[in-house]
Amino acid sequence: MLTGKSIIGSERGSETGTTFRAFNPQTGDAVEPDFYSATLDELNRAADLADAARIPFGNVAASERAKFLRAIADNIEALGDTLIERASLETALPNARFVGERGRTCSQLRMFADLLDEGSWVDARIDHAIPGRQPLPKPDVRSMLRPLGPVAVFCASNFPLAYSVAGGDTASALAAGCPVIVNAHVAHPGTAELVGIAVAKAVRDCSMPEGTFSLLFSDGYEIGQALVKHPAIKAVGFTGSRRGGRALMDIAAARPEPIPVYTEMSSVNPTFILPSAVVERGDAIAAGLHASVTGGVGQFCTKPGLVFLPESERSENFISNFKSQISDTAPSPLLTGGIRKSYEDATAHRRSEVAGFTANEETNLPGFAVNPSVFETSAIEFLNTPDLNEEIFGPTTLLIRSSKHEELLDIARSLEGQLTASVHGSESDLSEYADLIEILETKVGRLIFNGFSTGVEVCPSMVHGGPYPATSDSRSTAVGSRAITRFARLVCFQNFPDAALPRELKKANPCAIWRMIDNAYTK
Amino acid sequence: MLTGKSIIGSERGSETGTTFRAFNPQTGDAVEPDFYSATLDELNRAADLADAARIPFGNVAASERAKFLRAIADNIEALGDTLIERASLETALPNARFVGERGRTCSQLRMFADLLDEGSWVDARIDHAIPGRQPLPKPDVRSMLRPLGPVAVFCASNFPLAYSVAGGDTASALAAGCPVIVNAHVAHPGTAELVGIAVAKAVRDCSMPEGTFSLLFSDGYEIGQALVKHPAIKAVGFTGSRRGGRALMDIAAARPEPIPVYTEMSSVNPTFILPSAVVERGDAIAAGLHASVTGGVGQFCTKPGLVFLPESERSENFISNFKSQISDTAPSPLLTGGIRKSYEDATAHRRSEVAGFTANEETNLPGFAVNPSVFETSAIEFLNTPDLNEEIFGPTTLLIRSSKHEELLDIARSLEGQLTASVHGSESDLSEYADLIEILETKVGRLIFNGFSTGVEVCPSMVHGGPYPATSDSRSTAVGSRAITRFARLVCFQNFPDAALPRELKKANPCAIWRMIDNAYTK
Repeated sequence: MLTGKSIIGSERGSETGTTFRAFNPQTGDAVEPDFYSATLDELNRAADLADAARIPFGNVAASERAKFLRAIADNIEALGDTLIERASLETALPNARFVGERGRTCSQLRMFADLLDEGSWVDARIDHAIPGRQPLPKPDVRSMLRPLGPVAVFCASNFPLAYSVAGGDTASALAAGCPVIVNAHVAHPGTAELVGIAVAKAVRDCSMPEGTFSLLFSDGYEIGQALVKHPAIKAVGFTGSRRGGRALMDIAAARPEPIPVYTEMSSVNPTFILPSAVVERGDAIAAGLHASVTGGVGQFCTKPGLVFLPESERSENFISNFKSQISDTAPSPLLTGGIRKSYEDATAHRRSEVAGFTANEETNLPGFAVNPSVFETSAIEFLNTPDLNEEIFGPTTLLIRSSKHEELLDIARSLEGQLTASVHGSESDLSEYADLIEILETKVGRLIFNGFSTGVEVCPSMVHGGPYPATSDSRSTAVGSRAITRFARLVCFQNFPDAALPRELKKANPCAIWRMIDNAYTK
Repeated sequence: MLTGKSIIGSERGSETGTTFRAFNPQTGDAVEPDFYSATLDELNRAADLADAARIPFGNVAASERAKFLRAIADNIEALGDTLIERASLETALPNARFVGERGRTCSQLRMFADLLDEGSWVDARIDHAIPGRQPLPKPDVRSMLRPLGPVAVFCASNFPLAYSVAGGDTASALAAGCPVIVNAHVAHPGTAELVGIAVAKAVRDCSMPEGTFSLLFSDGYEIGQALVKHPAIKAVGFTGSRRGGRALMDIAAARPEPIPVYTEMSSVNPTFILPSAVVERGDAIAAGLHASVTGGVGQFCTKPGLVFLPESERSENFISNFKSQISDTAPSPLLTGGIRKSYEDATAHRRSEVAGFTANEETNLPGFAVNPSVFETSAIEFLNTPDLNEEIFGPTTLLIRSSKHEELLDIARSLEGQLTASVHGSESDLSEYADLIEILETKVGRLIFNGFSTGVEVCPSMVHGGPYPATSDSRSTAVGSRAITRFARLVCFQNFPDAALPRELKKANPCAIWRMIDNAYTK
């Protein structure tokens, strides 16, 4: 089924570009078939098609876009075990993980379909004319969210389904009415092609404009950067490294026409375990923390990378308990050789700075496998060593002892932007540490009480975002139904006759949506 | 009453910086008193105060912020004729203009106060826990918009009240809970100081944190640029030239932590007069166009700078009618010597490219006065001369003859981003030119049917924005109640006990706001 060729609208790419292969992280061996990097000509063709699809796809009725999203989900499910097995082969993550991730991917697509069918997300507003108003008549003014235009989506290494070809960024952009060009991740091109075929089939079956979707393979940065520079592209979605995300932000900001970029990059998800929690639930928290740090081989953006504990005997019990769980954790392969090298380099560097502990002595591990590790330090040392704030992608975390309330506030103030912060404690701790929570609120997208940061619920209220460098745009979320508004912009119609208005703004409210009419919410 | 000194929290700036004065555009003479440019130390002090105010001001109850906004409006009104006369002196715009603009400024402040009292703008969302859900429990997740942090506001030359010290950007940022540091416009520092005194008094009287508001004078770019670079600043609002706005965008994008910038810059507001309109309402449209082009001496961002007309005898009547109105228009002073020079240079350049007509022969005009002018060309020449798209700030416009439907589409496709586009015609024209409207929709923030682009209604549905270079962020609006969301970001609370939640997210809904609860709008 795999051809290794890009998907350019209704056609397939050529075999002229450089080739590359996926790797099996278990063994480090290359996996068939060859994938052909897209050429700049192919990229330009995909961008021209997306540009041509911009108006017609943006004007497809919401109910038809909803059907299209559901067709994508159905087609992904129809791939069956082929998809699960290829994703597992390319990542060394277990089949069960991909059964779950496929479920999330398809439910995200259907969530946006439901959102379109309900329709109120467009924030329709109507202010009626007052022709006799003094000193000037008031015009009829109506507005709503409309699509931003073609979107470039970069697949995430760590979510081959849920944040890749038909993942959250693509689903929300298509839902908003924006054509999408996906830049496949070099680590799982076969998974990308399978999902790409599923999306392309939905485009055809639902009679969407040809340029609604393209998928480009590439094994370097050239195609991705050219995509962000292309004048037809009006927004970017990216999940990956801080360096990669910042590079795309800088390219987008330097364009003749700068465009919005939604990069999700780097987060160490500080976790504060307050004294009462260590005493009352130390063992349970240690077990939860271990699962959160090592789940997905530590490759979740919400992995707790900094854990603050009181200086106490109970904390020492907690730490030795946690270490023994790390010690009992088998080595596991990371997603790519590059991620393994970064993990090995970063943990070696951290070992040179603070006390550290690695699970196994065995260093001659097969494929991309690594040993989990844990580091520990004092609050003062942490405050004096800024690079301890750096994210290490992989199964490791840093435990920091601090018992002084004011010191915790200083630490919180010193933090960069984060996706999440977690606090474990009692309800009375929340009052006592209200000042800590206030500071953390300015640093994160999501505050969690007595829970772990991994596991991001997909729901209308979820915020998966946060101040830089967690993301490029703290105003938005990449998870949950609000993600659709990232790819929309406000358009206003003044004094338009009913017949010429979008359906959402017509007098009769044919979409039956919530609207703000003369400053009151009305349905 | 005027001291010429910056307002740094509760204190006034020093007299150590360089001095400058306002000018009377009628005469070109400098006007007392001296104003003292803020020093970098003063800027840093203002930024530190704003940073210190970030959490306490962000946590002021919405009802108290509403009172604060109303107090600002009351204090501005209490300045009485002093304010009107100073604004008129510094701009040569008539007193009546400032009576109107003061009304708009104060009603904007009160609109945001009402918005806070109603409260639903925070987009509160609640998803209840489902502890027994399989395979994993669903947590309780709640989220809402919270303030972004301190905002730098740059005053607009052309709206000394409504888009300056306590104008739309400041009002919406304060409403969102963000401290504000204003960079006064060099052309109307006296107006700025008067309004700054009114805001500072409201800060004191309402017991807001000291750093809630500061006002910096400066006669160069250094202070403004340092302000945008300051790490305490989390967003920027600016209204001005394309070059100035882009410079701030580039500075903000190059920061270690890039921040959102809302610049409103450049728009030529294309106006399409279709054949039926010229025939049926030619005289009325010519009169309306004249008022729109020359109002405020052509210094509105929504001034129609490109006017497309059919090639017909009736169009020639329209053109000669319009020219004779321009011919009868007296010279008027522009806001600054710099704006006058730009107008003279740009109209001279345009005269070298296309046919042009200037109202009076008199060139030895007093102060910053200029003559209105009008240019005309063909569609082909327009399409072949890209710099005819450039905005000329001042009382001038460009008339372009085109009778081919397809040619109008090509013109629309060639346009840069705009604040507005207007179409004059019949309802059946709107069907016939539906393809034109579709293209224009991708280029503008506001589409107007049978009306003029100047005169921006302040209401919940207004969109004063548009794709670059009209603004830096087409997703947002600078006018109307939605402007508040520019200065807010999403924050999520997971599994928080009711007592620790913000009021807007508490179980009992003590703010009585609309909320999305378990995916349904509820009040």
